[in-house]
Amino acid sequence: MTAANHRLDLDTGFLGALLDGPHADKRHRGREVAEHADAHLPDDLTLDQKREATKDALHHVVDSGMTQLPLPVDAGGKNDHAGYVSGFEELVASSPSLQIKAGVQFGLFGGAIQHLGNAEQQAKWLLPALKGELLGSFAMTEIGHGSDVASLGTTALYDPADDSFVLHTPFRAATKEYIGNAACHAQAAVVFAKLIVDGVDHGVHVLFVPVRDEDGAPMPGVSFEDDGYKGGLPGVDNGRIAFDHVRVPRTNLLDRYGAVDADGVYSSPIESPGRRFFTMLSTLVQGRVSLDGAATVAEKLALDIAIRYGLERRQFSGAGDAETVLLDYGRHQRRLMPRLARAYADAFAHEKLLESFQAVFSGADDSEAAQQRLETEAAGFKAMTTWNALDTIQVCREACGGAGFMAENRLVGLHADLDVFATFEGDNTVLLQLVGKRLLGDYSEELRHIDFGGAARLIGSQAAEYSLYRSGLANVGRTIGDLFTPALNASRIRSGKMQEALLASRVESMVAQVAQDLRPAAKADPATAAALFNDNQHALIEAAQAYVELLKWQALNEAMHAVDAKAHPSEAKVLRRIRDLFGLSLIEEHIGWHIMFGRLSMARARQIGPAIDRLCRKLRDNAAELVGAFGYGPAQRRSAIAEGAEAERQEEAAEYLRRERAKADAPVDEKVLHRRRKAEAKAAKGAQKS
Amino acid sequence: MTAANHRLDLDTGFLGALLDGPHADKRHRGREVAEHADAHLPDDLTLDQKREATKDALHHVVDSGMTQLPLPVDAGGKNDHAGYVSGFEELVASSPSLQIKAGVQFGLFGGAIQHLGNAEQQAKWLLPALKGELLGSFAMTEIGHGSDVASLGTTALYDPADDSFVLHTPFRAATKEYIGNAACHAQAAVVFAKLIVDGVDHGVHVLFVPVRDEDGAPMPGVSFEDDGYKGGLPGVDNGRIAFDHVRVPRTNLLDRYGAVDADGVYSSPIESPGRRFFTMLSTLVQGRVSLDGAATVAEKLALDIAIRYGLERRQFSGAGDAETVLLDYGRHQRRLMPRLARAYADAFAHEKLLESFQAVFSGADDSEAAQQRLETEAAGFKAMTTWNALDTIQVCREACGGAGFMAENRLVGLHADLDVFATFEGDNTVLLQLVGKRLLGDYSEELRHIDFGGAARLIGSQAAEYSLYRSGLANVGRTIGDLFTPALNASRIRSGKMQEALLASRVESMVAQVAQDLRPAAKADPATAAALFNDNQHALIEAAQAYVELLKWQALNEAMHAVDAKAHPSEAKVLRRIRDLFGLSLIEEHIGWHIMFGRLSMARARQIGPAIDRLCRKLRDNAAELVGAFGYGPAQRRSAIAEGAEAERQEEAAEYLRRERAKADAPVDEKVLHRRRKAEAKAAKGAQKS
Repeated sequence: MTAANHRLDLDTGFLGALLDGPHADKRHRGREVAEHADAHLPDDLTLDQKREATKDALHHVVDSGMTQLPLPVDAGGKNDHAGYVSGFEELVASSPSLQIKAGVQFGLFGGAIQHLGNAEQQAKWLLPALKGELLGSFAMTEIGHGSDVASLGTTALYDPADDSFVLHTPFRAATKEYIGNAACHAQAAVVFAKLIVDGVDHGVHVLFVPVRDEDGAPMPGVSFEDDGYKGGLPGVDNGRIAFDHVRVPRTNLLDRYGAVDADGVYSSPIESPGRRFFTMLSTLVQGRVSLDGAATVAEKLALDIAIRYGLERRQFSGAGDAETVLLDYGRHQRRLMPRLARAYADAFAHEKLLESFQAVFSGADDSEAAQQRLETEAAGFKAMTTWNALDTIQVCREACGGAGFMAENRLVGLHADLDVFATFEGDNTVLLQLVGKRLLGDYSEELRHIDFGGAARLIGSQAAEYSLYRSGLANVGRTIGDLFTPALNASRIRSGKMQEALLASRVESMVAQVAQDLRPAAKADPATAAALFNDNQHALIEAAQAYVELLKWQALNEAMHAVDAKAHPSEAKVLRRIRDLFGLSLIEEHIGWHIMFGRLSMARARQIGPAIDRLCRKLRDNAAELVGAFGYGPAQRRSAIAEGAEAERQEEAAEYLRRERAKADAPVDEKVLHRRRKAEAKAAKGAQKS
Repeated sequence: MTAANHRLDLDTGFLGALLDGPHADKRHRGREVAEHADAHLPDDLTLDQKREATKDALHHVVDSGMTQLPLPVDAGGKNDHAGYVSGFEELVASSPSLQIKAGVQFGLFGGAIQHLGNAEQQAKWLLPALKGELLGSFAMTEIGHGSDVASLGTTALYDPADDSFVLHTPFRAATKEYIGNAACHAQAAVVFAKLIVDGVDHGVHVLFVPVRDEDGAPMPGVSFEDDGYKGGLPGVDNGRIAFDHVRVPRTNLLDRYGAVDADGVYSSPIESPGRRFFTMLSTLVQGRVSLDGAATVAEKLALDIAIRYGLERRQFSGAGDAETVLLDYGRHQRRLMPRLARAYADAFAHEKLLESFQAVFSGADDSEAAQQRLETEAAGFKAMTTWNALDTIQVCREACGGAGFMAENRLVGLHADLDVFATFEGDNTVLLQLVGKRLLGDYSEELRHIDFGGAARLIGSQAAEYSLYRSGLANVGRTIGDLFTPALNASRIRSGKMQEALLASRVESMVAQVAQDLRPAAKADPATAAALFNDNQHALIEAAQAYVELLKWQALNEAMHAVDAKAHPSEAKVLRRIRDLFGLSLIEEHIGWHIMFGRLSMARARQIGPAIDRLCRKLRDNAAELVGAFGYGPAQRRSAIAEGAEAERQEEAAEYLRRERAKADAPVDEKVLHRRRKAEAKAAKGAQKS
């Protein structure tokens, strides 16, 4: 079953440096945390022990020096947001529970104080938070409302009588829910509540609220419930928080975008309540950026494990005597190689996202256009990467058979822990609708201003001046006609221009189609407009997915072109294979569309599948180096099947069988006996005849 | 956002009886087990406690009277195999751990004694096993080999000196692995080992081996390891078993298909060792049949939960004031309704499978043709249904947002427990390859006899005389031409004949294509033939999937046609919607293929998506009744979000908001204030002017 060998001589270190990107040093620091065994959460710990171990492991994150990277230089930081997030997302290798707990503590709780608090508030609470001395919750989501933050029910009523806010949970659905650190560890919380001052509801603002006293008892009026067992992330103590007329001083309002002065007068630097709300929420983008990266880390780990095992595990004897290595099976290659290519795309695309993130958060370019592009890309990337990671982990787990189901081989734990990534920090479906809505708004000024109601309304008010659509797509789409020459041979099917044109023209057409279908909404009443939007919701989300796929492909393509092909011919070549496999896989996934809309002739479409098969076979021969470039070692993988045990066992078995066969009295296979007897009978018959 | 209502007045009981099939009474008995709380495995139990609770709950299964149903009538049974399996698979609602533990104990351990043992052996061990008094393991899989049973390494050497077998694990990879009941509870095991008698290796046979003494200590020479934590099924104590020259009496060989007499002479009623091996393994089909059913139960439970929640949960305000019910969103319908249709197809197809199973196992029709058809269908159904169940559970969990991730809402547990279904009792990929190989063999006599090596060899030796392909497909495929009239309108796109023709012709063409590609193998050496087969492995598996999809569609179609449309017009109509949604979804999934191979014109293909949207909307209006027909109650669902808590909370919140708004001093929204001020300014300006 061995065909031609397509192995290229690869410099794994070179590829690894490309993947790790400009913040490689921070990534390495993040990976080193995995070397501390105390954060690994062995399965036989109780839930409480896992929570304590995770809390205690926070100090490794603090010790790594990462948590203060995003502080301004004059506050002792480096204004390094991308480096911070890079290091952070690598904590997945230590344990996703630690990554998320650290995300709650430093990113969300600390981040809210940094981005929404004033200097005085930062002086009091920020450093203790970033040092892990003041543990906190980010109390936004309620039982009744998650992704729809504007509809939160918790109220913060200003009481001029004693210059304080009265925080209150007026009904059960307004109870804060799924709040990390709430069940056990939070001493304080940043609480999202409707701010009511002097009879006016100013919408959602954030307050700093002490929730437990020094002995860990709930502060008066604060009550907790434990979310208990979840599908994963056992080290994170999620819980519910309710407030019964809890008073906090006026100065506990994080007041960068909305303040109440000593006279009880509300003011804000942003006049429009809608813009103010979205500005406050914009700091949430950091969570989405880091989930995009964390999901990428998780899929790399899973592929690393499954491919190492697939290169050792043998099953079913081949044409000769030796059993066949799993990764030599055509189907096994088809399951894993396109996912490997996609992991490369996710990694390079994530580095681009980090670039935008750093520009906006460092202040290098925090124009509204840059902010909105960041938000759109973070939303789309987070949604697509987290789903992809879940699928990839599941395929990897199945590719390892029964061994994949054993907790000690890590894959089931990664799936369980990553599961919630699809619905937290913005439900993936809602996030993709946001991306779709932006595409629509860019496509048509008219559509930007229609009130579609429902979820669409939330997004409508965020419309921006820049154009994703026109800048990114139209010029690419235009070139597609040129590529439709009838004589496309097998190698031309791998043309990068062709791939980009197909991917881009799909986005273009899908958005145009939805826009056309929505046009009547301009003259309709709101209910009809909303119904029309709803009829197109599925199509709009598909368009958003197509757009994100295009961006990921472009990032991979760019990374490939950035390699000096003269200095690094093999690496450039393997990246081209990866890009082509990713691009063609995307095209194959939607091949019906490409044919239906006349982008691919049927004859050409039939070449896609075989081209993918060839690329899978070629990449298989460098599979070891390609996962090696991810830069993980046994401390990060911690999967018994990925470290050579299987090969060792096979060697032992083979050695035993060799010895047995060499023995004079080795048993004869009954089948051989049957064949022998038949031959003897035949010979005897022949002898009789002659 | 409310469109026309398509609600039909449905008789849920009537639909439920259809779904539950001819063994409804056994299903109800199985569901009742879920009412015993002691098998529910609350998350806060330790692993040991979960294992003990599951073991203890076995008695509910025994008490239900189910375990003896498959015994012959003269042994006190009912020869009722389908009823037995029907009741059994419903144990998933109690806990998948119990279902699997019971499957190991009664189905595999008991089943091996019943099907492979002689009368004396059955008299000694069978009833104690079926009463749960003698707990046992089914020790087939080894670390080194799972799906490839023929390559097992454990040996059973006959020693004439003391008329016993010496059971031995000659190397680490031959250790029995993932064995249910092994870690704690098994007193005995049916052990698969290569039988060596008088210098001849007769291939894999099964022996009854006591593994623990009355105090639970390992028998001399037997050693155990605990598999510990897995991705799910915590109540099943999986472990490893190794044998160090363990002696068992000659009479412990389960000798229906291979015996050793008192003189140490081996004999078998089946001369060919290959056929003998597959005959012994054929009893394994029961496991696959019941996993097909258990996976169907799991997907029904998940849909029941997610759809009930989706009908209550509201999120994002609609065009008016009230928030929109999740299931009114177009995308939400697109996520859940096609899966609901597929669950119906899985349920009806499973009943057909049970029919074949009953015919073969009861002896009503145990012809080789019937046996092989059963094996092929069980393999294909098990693979496709278990994958589908996993996907459906995941989609359901995400459709419930954060609540879906909470253990108390059941969905994450179902996913974790069902995960291993994809790779045990035959890896899904290997099973589908078996189906594909059968299709090939039926297509071409020539291909049936080529030795492709590898996994294909295993299957090749099972070739049968009957024809799946010719009987099931060709006549359907032939009608497709007639359907290609240019004037297909929107309603014709729902034509059942059209759906069947498209699904069938796809199978036909895919099989023909692979067969053509493999033709050169007939004249090639084994290595080249194997390589050629491997190049086509992916395509062959896709063809097998298409075949299973066709069978499932046909089962659903048949069930629909069996309803008397005059007596039950609404039920017949809703089943037609379900069939059409399932059929069109399958066609949409592979729309590229249908266009590429000229089966669908582009114009017609573009009608599929909108037709699916319309069907989703229509079925949404009967969603409550359609999951109601599954027949589960709170005791089976046990999901906090599925029992009305959400609606209650919303009512409380709405009531609060009503009261607040009625107050004279209710806070004014700042946005309203802005609008008011603008209006006043405008009015003032107007007043100045006039």
